[in-house]
Amino acid sequence: MNVAELILKKRDGFALAETEITFLIEGYTAGRIPDYQMAAFCMAVFHRGMTAEETLCLTRAMLRSGSVLDFSSLPGLKLDKHSTGGVGDKTSLIIAPLVAAAGAYVPMISGRGLGFSGGTLDKLESIPGFTVQLPLPRFRAVLEQVGCAMIGQTEQIAPADRKLYSLRDVTATVESIPLICASIMSKKLAEGLDGLVLDVKTGAGAFMPTLEQASDLAQSLVDIGNCLGTQTVALITDMNQPLGKAVGNTLEVQEAIETLKGSGPQDLALLCEKLSSRMLSLTAESAEAGRARTRVAEALSSGRALEKFAQMVEAQGGDPRVIDNASLLPQAALREVIASNSTGFVTGVNARSVGRASMALGAGRETVDSRIDPSVGILLNKKIGDRVEKGEPLCTVFYNQAAKFESVRQPLLEAFAIDPDRVEPPPLIKRLVE
Amino acid sequence: MNVAELILKKRDGFALAETEITFLIEGYTAGRIPDYQMAAFCMAVFHRGMTAEETLCLTRAMLRSGSVLDFSSLPGLKLDKHSTGGVGDKTSLIIAPLVAAAGAYVPMISGRGLGFSGGTLDKLESIPGFTVQLPLPRFRAVLEQVGCAMIGQTEQIAPADRKLYSLRDVTATVESIPLICASIMSKKLAEGLDGLVLDVKTGAGAFMPTLEQASDLAQSLVDIGNCLGTQTVALITDMNQPLGKAVGNTLEVQEAIETLKGSGPQDLALLCEKLSSRMLSLTAESAEAGRARTRVAEALSSGRALEKFAQMVEAQGGDPRVIDNASLLPQAALREVIASNSTGFVTGVNARSVGRASMALGAGRETVDSRIDPSVGILLNKKIGDRVEKGEPLCTVFYNQAAKFESVRQPLLEAFAIDPDRVEPPPLIKRLVE
Repeated sequence: MNVAELILKKRDGFALAETEITFLIEGYTAGRIPDYQMAAFCMAVFHRGMTAEETLCLTRAMLRSGSVLDFSSLPGLKLDKHSTGGVGDKTSLIIAPLVAAAGAYVPMISGRGLGFSGGTLDKLESIPGFTVQLPLPRFRAVLEQVGCAMIGQTEQIAPADRKLYSLRDVTATVESIPLICASIMSKKLAEGLDGLVLDVKTGAGAFMPTLEQASDLAQSLVDIGNCLGTQTVALITDMNQPLGKAVGNTLEVQEAIETLKGSGPQDLALLCEKLSSRMLSLTAESAEAGRARTRVAEALSSGRALEKFAQMVEAQGGDPRVIDNASLLPQAALREVIASNSTGFVTGVNARSVGRASMALGAGRETVDSRIDPSVGILLNKKIGDRVEKGEPLCTVFYNQAAKFESVRQPLLEAFAIDPDRVEPPPLIKRLVE
Repeated sequence: MNVAELILKKRDGFALAETEITFLIEGYTAGRIPDYQMAAFCMAVFHRGMTAEETLCLTRAMLRSGSVLDFSSLPGLKLDKHSTGGVGDKTSLIIAPLVAAAGAYVPMISGRGLGFSGGTLDKLESIPGFTVQLPLPRFRAVLEQVGCAMIGQTEQIAPADRKLYSLRDVTATVESIPLICASIMSKKLAEGLDGLVLDVKTGAGAFMPTLEQASDLAQSLVDIGNCLGTQTVALITDMNQPLGKAVGNTLEVQEAIETLKGSGPQDLALLCEKLSSRMLSLTAESAEAGRARTRVAEALSSGRALEKFAQMVEAQGGDPRVIDNASLLPQAALREVIASNSTGFVTGVNARSVGRASMALGAGRETVDSRIDPSVGILLNKKIGDRVEKGEPLCTVFYNQAAKFESVRQPLLEAFAIDPDRVEPPPLIKRLVE
């Protein structure tokens, strides 16, 4: 096979055969196909798309480029959740121990944040001592002992994706649905799961702004999962305003702990419960759905979910005392309130603006080499539907450098839309895709 | 400036500013921008195109990546012709000495053939001893002494194009009008010309199959030339059937010599005269056009054009005796006729099929590393409009390997369309673009 001819075939809008896609991915992973040909191929895919069949073949080829974990000896369901990324989305930190406490195993391999969405690994690393770089045998041991474990991508899992993602990042080929699907699913399906729930965000703070785009992405992801033997569903959820009230690493860990204690923000708690019970009822009869909800509620109210979180933190080298003493987490030196300059009702909190402000404070990374400041971030005092008086705080900014605070003051003020008439908060869960 | 952002800008269909295009070309030429980013950029340009302004900026940046020759001290017009490539197109070999004999200078830098179109350099190299790799001072000396010189691309001329063309060739990004325009014009304008005539081929054997596509390409090329200070026009000419009767390197050199002697095929002779007189009248008043035609006719009939050819061959190390003794050119060991299996009129000779057959015999290269057999090729016994009897030769194949002949026998037979009704030969010159 000739690589240039395969690029040309895709460039001109034709579908590649499985053997052709496998040839490209194997050759690229092994270093026989150079970056420049793969970059041209990715740009051709960006413009021409891929059929469902091609996307499936691409995912399979990328999945097979590395190890597929096998936890079949563990007595129970192996489940995971993946979010397409949003602002204030700390659900993974809550769901992994919650689902483990309800009796399943959650072998979660996560990513770092890039751009205005935070990353699960960055949040976890704000816990002193916590390591996300466990060798696979240790990952398995923590999973077996605790029921959940959360690590970063390893060399063994989908190496084709590691290589391809780095290339896409510098060649403006990230935003392609087939490439995104293959990237997400090749990693998740390598976890050896029985079931996977996808949380596909839509709205101003999401990668997919419209419900239609989010639904297309969700359907594509769900079809791949099911075709490749993992029960998969997706919830399309709102990301117009940030999820919960905390944005920034330490602040989000604190909020996750509060939620595990039963005192988290309502939207965050609700989404975690919905996603967790979906995970637990994925492979069960439909009559079991109600039972899954009960198991999740009990795991939370009994304190077992919080206990699992503490066990996981300890097993991964972190200090579990952060659960009862938030001051052990890195703290920002300074904080200041952004006050409303009008009276009325909050009708919008632009998630993208809040995410960008958090990144500008130092909570996120502009490039893969950026260093994160775990202590900085934003706490929302008001969300959509809340009444606000002139002079009342809209949000509180946690920061270490005055200049950075100054740079986010106006954008944060403008992130809040305030109108005379009250609006309902937007529905959190917009659609189920299965 | 951030390279990935510039790729993204083009990917999403926006026009780049001159500073941005210059940044990309300078960075790529200097090795600061890697192949993989340039490959993604080229594929984005393939899909999104470029504005006339962008194409002009790209051409200028590529032109300025190397030396621009300066022949202003030579007493006379510096003129050149460039063809977009066709089957049997040996016009350069005729026009360079013809225009030199008519009193101008022709500093011609040509390319090699790739695919089914032959290359001028490959044809010249079938003359024993002829070298196309002259250092620039020697190129100038031959030009000064003879009036014309024909060489291959050098390191000094448009190095950005050399690098970019190699990359495009292996990333399926050759067929993009702005990239083609910038590639052609950055090299031609580096010759320090007063005027340039472009021969843009259209039809089955051309890169641009339709007249409309060819006209768009021609207009874009002409605009670039004129904007960058070289008087430029284009003729759109027919490439449905091969030009002349000879296809293959030795055969084409022989036919060029015959044409310089006044006994070449009518279509080839006509096109060479038209292109040459256009070149000579480019920078002149319109009343001079008739005079240019007379000068060309005199240069031919007096034998001065043939003499210039002989001088150039000798000055570039070749054996000028080939002019009177064609057997000094490499000769194929075998020849066989393809006979018609029906009686009627030739209504089509598929140039692409003939070009492919010639390549299959060994006259062209499949890849840049392929070695060419100068002796093989095809002589057409019939062209469009000719009457043919069943059993009469349609063409004669010159070859060295029986298996290769067998592989082209049927395709060559099928390249000829024979119908009961006579058709006119297609008009050779379809349009003038200025």
